[in-house]
Amino acid sequence: MTDTDDLARELDRAHVFHSWSAQSQTSSLVIASGRGCRVWDHAGNEYLDFSSQLVNVNIGHQHPAVVSAIREQAELLTTIAPSTVNLARGEAAKRIIDHAPEGFRRVFFTNGGADANENAIRLARLATGRDKILSTYRSYHGNTGAAIVSTGDWRRVPNEFARGHVHFFGPYLYRSEFWATTPEQESERALHHLRRVIEAEGPTSIAAVLLETVPGTAGILVPPPGYLAGVRELCDRHGILLILDEVMAGFGRTGRWFAFDGYDVRPDLITFAKGVNSGYVPAGGVVIDEPIAERFDDRVFPGGLTYSGHPLAMASIVATLDAMSSEGVVEHARAIGETAIGPALADLAERYAVIGEVRGEGVFWAVELVADRDTREPLPAAAMGRIKAALVARGLLPFIQDNRIHVVPPCVVTEEEVAEAMAIYDEVLAAETTGGGEGRE
Amino acid sequence: MTDTDDLARELDRAHVFHSWSAQSQTSSLVIASGRGCRVWDHAGNEYLDFSSQLVNVNIGHQHPAVVSAIREQAELLTTIAPSTVNLARGEAAKRIIDHAPEGFRRVFFTNGGADANENAIRLARLATGRDKILSTYRSYHGNTGAAIVSTGDWRRVPNEFARGHVHFFGPYLYRSEFWATTPEQESERALHHLRRVIEAEGPTSIAAVLLETVPGTAGILVPPPGYLAGVRELCDRHGILLILDEVMAGFGRTGRWFAFDGYDVRPDLITFAKGVNSGYVPAGGVVIDEPIAERFDDRVFPGGLTYSGHPLAMASIVATLDAMSSEGVVEHARAIGETAIGPALADLAERYAVIGEVRGEGVFWAVELVADRDTREPLPAAAMGRIKAALVARGLLPFIQDNRIHVVPPCVVTEEEVAEAMAIYDEVLAAETTGGGEGRE
Repeated sequence: MTDTDDLARELDRAHVFHSWSAQSQTSSLVIASGRGCRVWDHAGNEYLDFSSQLVNVNIGHQHPAVVSAIREQAELLTTIAPSTVNLARGEAAKRIIDHAPEGFRRVFFTNGGADANENAIRLARLATGRDKILSTYRSYHGNTGAAIVSTGDWRRVPNEFARGHVHFFGPYLYRSEFWATTPEQESERALHHLRRVIEAEGPTSIAAVLLETVPGTAGILVPPPGYLAGVRELCDRHGILLILDEVMAGFGRTGRWFAFDGYDVRPDLITFAKGVNSGYVPAGGVVIDEPIAERFDDRVFPGGLTYSGHPLAMASIVATLDAMSSEGVVEHARAIGETAIGPALADLAERYAVIGEVRGEGVFWAVELVADRDTREPLPAAAMGRIKAALVARGLLPFIQDNRIHVVPPCVVTEEEVAEAMAIYDEVLAAETTGGGEGRE
Repeated sequence: MTDTDDLARELDRAHVFHSWSAQSQTSSLVIASGRGCRVWDHAGNEYLDFSSQLVNVNIGHQHPAVVSAIREQAELLTTIAPSTVNLARGEAAKRIIDHAPEGFRRVFFTNGGADANENAIRLARLATGRDKILSTYRSYHGNTGAAIVSTGDWRRVPNEFARGHVHFFGPYLYRSEFWATTPEQESERALHHLRRVIEAEGPTSIAAVLLETVPGTAGILVPPPGYLAGVRELCDRHGILLILDEVMAGFGRTGRWFAFDGYDVRPDLITFAKGVNSGYVPAGGVVIDEPIAERFDDRVFPGGLTYSGHPLAMASIVATLDAMSSEGVVEHARAIGETAIGPALADLAERYAVIGEVRGEGVFWAVELVADRDTREPLPAAAMGRIKAALVARGLLPFIQDNRIHVVPPCVVTEEEVAEAMAIYDEVLAAETTGGGEGRE
């Protein structure tokens, strides 16, 4: 700890109002710099980042090519109105389109994931002339007016000021809402449930189904076989659009460019943010299938924002996607998930009864901790708090959500870093599950 | 025009979906670089920016101190989760607080003005336990779910998916909704109208009145004497919070740090974006009066976003506000408005009957063009389109809204640049109002 760390803490306590927090209980962890999977405070204390912050730093901290691109664009032109033409913006859009399914041709840029979903919802409503947006209870789609009401989790409840949002249950075999016992059954029953919700809501009143391809903060809920294809089929049957939210799952996280590339499904609208530029500059957007985009050729699209296609953000997207391509970052994420993270977590699960389930792929894994493997009762919050503190104390930045550890390092994480992290998880789980009074619930 | 300009246009047409536009009618104006009040395309064609883009580049394009700060922070740490402590974030918050009224201590950072208003609305509703937000028809508060419905202008109409928003008429003497003939009468009658709306809506159902201090895109509607103080008084009488939206008017635009510094009014929540860092990196936020902030000391604030307090954005705020202070940018904006822009526009108004009214201060002026000075009938859209094209053809980037030219250069505009712009406005108004068939409606 240095004077600078203290100053940072003092200013923070005095003047910064924090997201999703009681302000008296915010973290005092100072982060001043970073590189790859590691970050440091001003005193040089090092942390291994297995959170990717808010699961956004896919390319790792401070990738030199992206930093250079930001510096170069900063010298040239940081900002310009969205009504002008800017080369960085066109180049960024082209690179995103290059990874989208055939037929997608246009990108609308926003400042992040929330306003990406806002604009996808707007496009779906305008394109269909219908009102309702269906999304799952286990979801997070952002914090602005419509995005927060399409969100299913607790964060929606104090914020329900938008109309036209309906929630349903998605598949989650480990905690099935459908009394299912196999992935196939879970998929089939979840589709039955969605079909019944669509019928009961009135199919012609529904503009879109909005889904995270792999629900992220909700628990990295890898969809079971046939589910997404089944949703697509239900949508097609009723003229409903399918919006896939790839804000967290997209751009390498699953070991694929888009998470939906792993499933037999084609969305109508794709929302993105986070991984597209690892959040180096705030940016997000909507990739729009041409039949929807075309409807606004001669009709004004009633949405927009001052920083849509912001040159500095766009330059960071171009550099990020180029570096991810040339360095094989996405392929690396897939491989490290298969050969290192997956096997290591499976090993931990064998050795610790507190682990109820491990699921995931790429660099996108959830470890579900339970008080009892049979009842699957979640490990209580107090124990999760101890685990979080113990991980940080050992120099690992974890992503803890409810009763789960999300193992979500940057896509560039090395085998050595995985081994290092696994040793820390191991040590902390050992202390929590075998220790004396302090270590047990 | 160069090959690069053509490439930029080609990529734009192929892949970029534009804000608030019919996509077949977007601009083909390429902007590649800038400095101060000037921008250039790749071929070196120069434009004098009297729009500040979307009235955001208050400090001018590519201010070297801000560019340097972005480059330095880019080298150190571009992004970090909002739950951590970061020095740049604390420093940015402190600088904003330094310009706020006494008693304001905390800043919640967002990505722009829309989510600033979203979070101010959220805070007001949670702090009061009430639902309704009152705002004016002549207003723009952003494009996300709740922000767009608090917006009064046409952009709200296709997007009314949030509840709890009520609109009323604000003061606008030139086109009075209250049959007023003097500023004092307009103020008094607008307050009477607001009082009646509050009574009719039920005062205890109203969480906040949300106002742009000086409505911007709506026409730079400088509030008449006593209006804002009267609104404050009405709010106090009924336990209603006052949110002042300083997204466009704040940080130098009016020749003051906050526009409300010129009026006898103290808000409860202040929203900002644009001028706080001239949009060099997307950023915005809410300055929160302590009695409201304190309510979330032990209670979770149910709002947040991944890039809240983003280090790169924060570093650009610190550098912008420091440069504005040390270089006297705000004082300059006031002076140039008083000594150069105001007098020059008054002179144009004397010479051209097409100018119905000139109003403004600092670098925030509206020139209202009318087909008839007596009826105040707005100049038709076709004529406005010709004026816009003629200004651009002469190398001036204008801000045209409805029947108005908004004269809104960067705060750093020089006397010479004002003279240059005025000569162009003069030439174009002359051609439009005295020319042959083509020049007349």
